[in-house]
Amino acid sequence: MTAPEVPANQLVERILATHVNERFVKVAESLTPRLNEWIEHPLEAITFEPDPSTYFGCRARHKHTIDELKSLQWGRGDEFILDFGSHRAGYLSFHLSAEGLNVDAPVRLKLTFGEVPYDVTEELHPCNTWISTSWLPDETINIDWLPSDVDMPRRYSFRYVRVQVIDTSPKFKVLFSNIRVRAVSAVSPTQAVEPANLDDELWTKMDEVSMRTLRDCMQSVLEDGPRRDRRLWSGDLRLQALTNYCTFKDYSLVKRCLYLFAALPREDGSLPACLFEKPKLTPATDYIVTYEALYGVIVYDYACASGDLETAEDLWETVLNSMKMALSHVSPEGKFSSEGPGWKFLDWAEGLDTNAGMHGTTIFCCKAINKLAAMLGKNEPYTDIVAKMTAKAVDFFDEKQQVFVSGPSNQVSWASQAWMALAGALPPATCKKALLNAMASETSIKPLTPYLFHYVAEALAVSGAEKECLELMRHYWGGMLRAGADTFWECFDPKNSRASPYGDCHNNSYCHAWSCTPSYLLRSVLRDYLREGAESRKAAVV
Amino acid sequence: MTAPEVPANQLVERILATHVNERFVKVAESLTPRLNEWIEHPLEAITFEPDPSTYFGCRARHKHTIDELKSLQWGRGDEFILDFGSHRAGYLSFHLSAEGLNVDAPVRLKLTFGEVPYDVTEELHPCNTWISTSWLPDETINIDWLPSDVDMPRRYSFRYVRVQVIDTSPKFKVLFSNIRVRAVSAVSPTQAVEPANLDDELWTKMDEVSMRTLRDCMQSVLEDGPRRDRRLWSGDLRLQALTNYCTFKDYSLVKRCLYLFAALPREDGSLPACLFEKPKLTPATDYIVTYEALYGVIVYDYACASGDLETAEDLWETVLNSMKMALSHVSPEGKFSSEGPGWKFLDWAEGLDTNAGMHGTTIFCCKAINKLAAMLGKNEPYTDIVAKMTAKAVDFFDEKQQVFVSGPSNQVSWASQAWMALAGALPPATCKKALLNAMASETSIKPLTPYLFHYVAEALAVSGAEKECLELMRHYWGGMLRAGADTFWECFDPKNSRASPYGDCHNNSYCHAWSCTPSYLLRSVLRDYLREGAESRKAAVV
Repeated sequence: MTAPEVPANQLVERILATHVNERFVKVAESLTPRLNEWIEHPLEAITFEPDPSTYFGCRARHKHTIDELKSLQWGRGDEFILDFGSHRAGYLSFHLSAEGLNVDAPVRLKLTFGEVPYDVTEELHPCNTWISTSWLPDETINIDWLPSDVDMPRRYSFRYVRVQVIDTSPKFKVLFSNIRVRAVSAVSPTQAVEPANLDDELWTKMDEVSMRTLRDCMQSVLEDGPRRDRRLWSGDLRLQALTNYCTFKDYSLVKRCLYLFAALPREDGSLPACLFEKPKLTPATDYIVTYEALYGVIVYDYACASGDLETAEDLWETVLNSMKMALSHVSPEGKFSSEGPGWKFLDWAEGLDTNAGMHGTTIFCCKAINKLAAMLGKNEPYTDIVAKMTAKAVDFFDEKQQVFVSGPSNQVSWASQAWMALAGALPPATCKKALLNAMASETSIKPLTPYLFHYVAEALAVSGAEKECLELMRHYWGGMLRAGADTFWECFDPKNSRASPYGDCHNNSYCHAWSCTPSYLLRSVLRDYLREGAESRKAAVV
Repeated sequence: MTAPEVPANQLVERILATHVNERFVKVAESLTPRLNEWIEHPLEAITFEPDPSTYFGCRARHKHTIDELKSLQWGRGDEFILDFGSHRAGYLSFHLSAEGLNVDAPVRLKLTFGEVPYDVTEELHPCNTWISTSWLPDETINIDWLPSDVDMPRRYSFRYVRVQVIDTSPKFKVLFSNIRVRAVSAVSPTQAVEPANLDDELWTKMDEVSMRTLRDCMQSVLEDGPRRDRRLWSGDLRLQALTNYCTFKDYSLVKRCLYLFAALPREDGSLPACLFEKPKLTPATDYIVTYEALYGVIVYDYACASGDLETAEDLWETVLNSMKMALSHVSPEGKFSSEGPGWKFLDWAEGLDTNAGMHGTTIFCCKAINKLAAMLGKNEPYTDIVAKMTAKAVDFFDEKQQVFVSGPSNQVSWASQAWMALAGALPPATCKKALLNAMASETSIKPLTPYLFHYVAEALAVSGAEKECLELMRHYWGGMLRAGADTFWECFDPKNSRASPYGDCHNNSYCHAWSCTPSYLLRSVLRDYLREGAESRKAAVV
C-alpha cells in the first residue's frame, strides 16, 4: 500500500530519531535469501476483443503461436500482446533481429507489463492518480544495433506484455524470438507444498492462486506487491507469514523481516509500518498504530509455527515497545480512543471510524503477546489491560441493534465487528450475530480491501460462522477468480472494475500480499470444519 | 544522409553478392582509432523565451547556475534545460539524489538531447517524417533507487539537454548534481591545429565551427552526423577528409575508411555508398553512382595529402572498379546520360536533373584518377574518355543563356554549373560566367544541402570567382552562424527554419559532415586569395 501524505499531527513524529540496532541488522542480513530463478516462456500472442459479459469487458483471443511469432515481422505502429499464462515477477529478455535491406536506424519499442487486461488494452498515460505515476509498468527503449539480445534490467510483475513497435525504418522490420522471463522468488516454483485435499474445485483453485500471489511477493523480503510498492509492510507481513506457515514454510524469510523491523526503532521504541531495503536499510516515515501493535502478534505466530523461541526471546523487548503507541490511546478505564497522534489503518473504506476496531485490535494484540510471554516462561504483561478493555468492550455494543458501534455517530462497520470478534471481546455467539447483522445491513461500512476482508472472514470462522465465512470467500476471492485473477489483488470491487484507492486503477497492484490468505483460511482456520464437512458428505453418500 | 526507399530499378542490384575482402578488413581493423574521451560540464540551466527576430524564434535566458542547480528540488511536471555551451557527441551522466520524507517510488525522467533550440522547446512526437522516428533524441528512463548515479548508455549529439521530471512521488523530490558528458572523438579537443590566420572575425568563427563539426563526426569512422545516421558515407567522407587534411591531419582514420569501402565490393566490383560497422561490417543497400565515382578522387586526395602512395597502390584496382558504374552511363560519343540503373545524387533539391552534373562529375573523377595513375607511375586509364567527354560538354552548354543546361527540358541548376566547372569542361572564365548566370537566375534550381553548396563554392573559387565564393560562404555558412549554429547543419534554408529533406526538421542532423568544408575552403582553396587580399589591404594601409 502507499500511504497518503503525512497528516499534520504525524509530522511532529519525524523529529524522533531512528536508532539502528546493528546487531539486528546483521541477523537480518545473514538471513537474506538467495533468490530462486527460473525461465518461463510466453504461451501465445493474443489480442483482447470486447466482451461485455466479463469483469474487464474483454476476452483474450489467440493470434499467434510463439513458434509463428518467430517468423513474423513488425514495423512502425505494429503491436502484439504476449500471454505468459499466469503471473510472475521477473526480468524480461528476448532476441531482436531484423529483416530488410538494411538496419539503417535504431529501433524504438514500448513494452507494457500487464497484470490484468486493462494494463495492456488501454493507454496508461495520463494517469489520474494521487500517488506516483512512476509506478506505471511501461518502458520505452531504443536499440541501436540489430540483431541484439535485449535484457530488461528492471524487475516487472506481469502475466501479459504488450509490445509496441514505435518505429523501425522503411528499410527493415524486426522479429522477436527467445522471449522469456527470468522469474524470481525466495520460493522455488517446484517447492513441494503439502496437498490441501480440498474437496472442491473452487477452493483448490483459490488455494493455488493464493500461493502464487504469496510466491511472487516473496523476494528478498515479503513484499506487499511485486508491482507496487515492492517493499515490506508489517500489516501485509502478518497475513503473508500466516499463509506461508501452512504452505511454503519459509520461516527464515519471516524471521529476516521481523529483525529488519526490530533493527529500526525510533528513540521511543516505536517501529515503522514499512521499510526500505535499498539503497540502504531505512524506515519509511509511515508509522501506523495498528500495524505496529500487530508486530508482537507476528512474533507470536512465528514462534508457534516455527518453534523458534530463541528469536521470540531476542525480540521480546521490541515486542513490548511496539505496543506502547496503541496503549497510549487507552484511557485509564480501558477504552481505546482514536484521538491522538498516529494513523489507525484498518481499511481504505472511506469514512471508517476506527475507535471500536482499534479497541478490538488492541485486545487481540495484547492477548497474543500474553500467550507469547507464557511460551517464553515470562509473566504475562497485559493481563490487567486485557481484562479492563474486555470489560469496556460492551461500551461499544449497541444492545438494540446487536452490533458494535464506533465513534460519535455510532457508526456500524464490518471492521468493528471483525476486530471485536477476533479479540473475543464478547462471547463468540454474540460476535457472530454482530458480524452477520452488520453484513446484512445496507448502511454499514463495508470493507474496501482484501486486508479487512481477511479479518472479517477469519472473525466469522472463529465465531462459529464457518459457513458464512466460506460464503464470503466464494463471493469475494471467488469473484476475483471469476474475473480472471491469476493472483489476488490489492483491492476488488465486484461491481466496479475501475475501483482504486489511488484514483486510477492503472496504479493498482494485482498481486498483493494482503490478499493471499485464502490458503491460510482453507488450510488452517477452516481445516477441521472442511474435513468434517467432507466426512459427513461421504457418510451421507455411504 | 538517409536514402529514400530503393527505386524499383535498383532492386535488381540486390541480387549482386558482396565479396568481402578479408585482407582489406584486417587493414581497416588495425586502424581502428582509440577514441579520445574527455569530461565536460554544462555551463548553466536556461529557458528559451520567444524572440521573433531570431532564426528559431527564441532566445536563451539564464535561469540557474550549475551550482544553484545542485540544491534545487524537482518534482512531477518540473523541467529545465541544460546548456553545455557548444556541441559534442558523448555520453551523459549525472548523480540523482532525493529530498523528502521517503523515496517511496521510482523516478521517471525524460531526457531530450538538443542540437538546436527546437529540439528542446517543442514536443518531438508525433514526428511527420518519412524516415525512422527512432532517430529522435529522447529517452524516458525509470530509476528505482535513490541516490543513484545515472549513466546514459547511448551516445548522443547535443548542446542542450531538456530534463523533464515525469514524476517522483508526493513524498520526495529529486536533485541533480555532477552533470557531465563524456565527450568522444577520434580527435582530441586539445589537438594542436595550425592557426588559420584569418584576418576576419567571421572567417575565424566559421573555421572554428567547421572544425567542431568535423571533430564530432570523427568517431570510429568519419560519420556523416553523430546524431543521424552515425555512419560512413563516401560522399561525406570526401569533404571530411579534405577538411581534415588542413586541420587535424588524421590520415589514419581516412585510410581506415578507404579500406572499409574497398573491403565490400559487389561481384561487379562496385562499392556501396554507405556501410555499417556494427554489429558487423556490412554494406548498405545504397549504391550511388556519384558517390562511387568519387572513391578514386578520395584516394587521390589522400595520396596527395599524406604522401602514402603504398595505400593508393593497394587500392588501385578498387579505384578502377569504382568508375565502372558511372562510365556505363557514358555513350560511345562521350555523353553522360542519367537513364539507366543507379541513383545519381547531387543534392536533395526537388526535381534536379542530373545529366549535366553527372557529366561534369564523371570528367572530374576520371581526371583525378589519371593524376593518381601518374603519381603511381601507371598509364593514365581515362585519357580518351576525358578527351571525349570534355569535347561533348559543349552539348550541355546553352550559348544564348551562357549556362549549362540539363535534361530534356534544358533545366538550369547550380549543380550543373558547379560540376562542369570543377571538371574544367570549358575554360574557367566560361564556367565562372555560367555559375554567376545560374546563381543570378530566379528560376534556376538552387542547392538544398551544404553538400552541393560546397561544390558550388569550390567551383566558384577554382573558376576565378573567389569574391563570389566568399560572398556565398558569408551568406550560407555565415547564415547558420547568425542563426546560432555551434556546428554546421545537414541542411539550411535561410528563409525557413523548418526546412527538412525528411518532412520534419526534428529529424534533421545539425552537426553534419558534409557541411564542415569552410575550413577547407578558407585554409586551402582560398588560402592564396585571402593572403593576397590581406597583403594588399596591409599595403593600402601603409
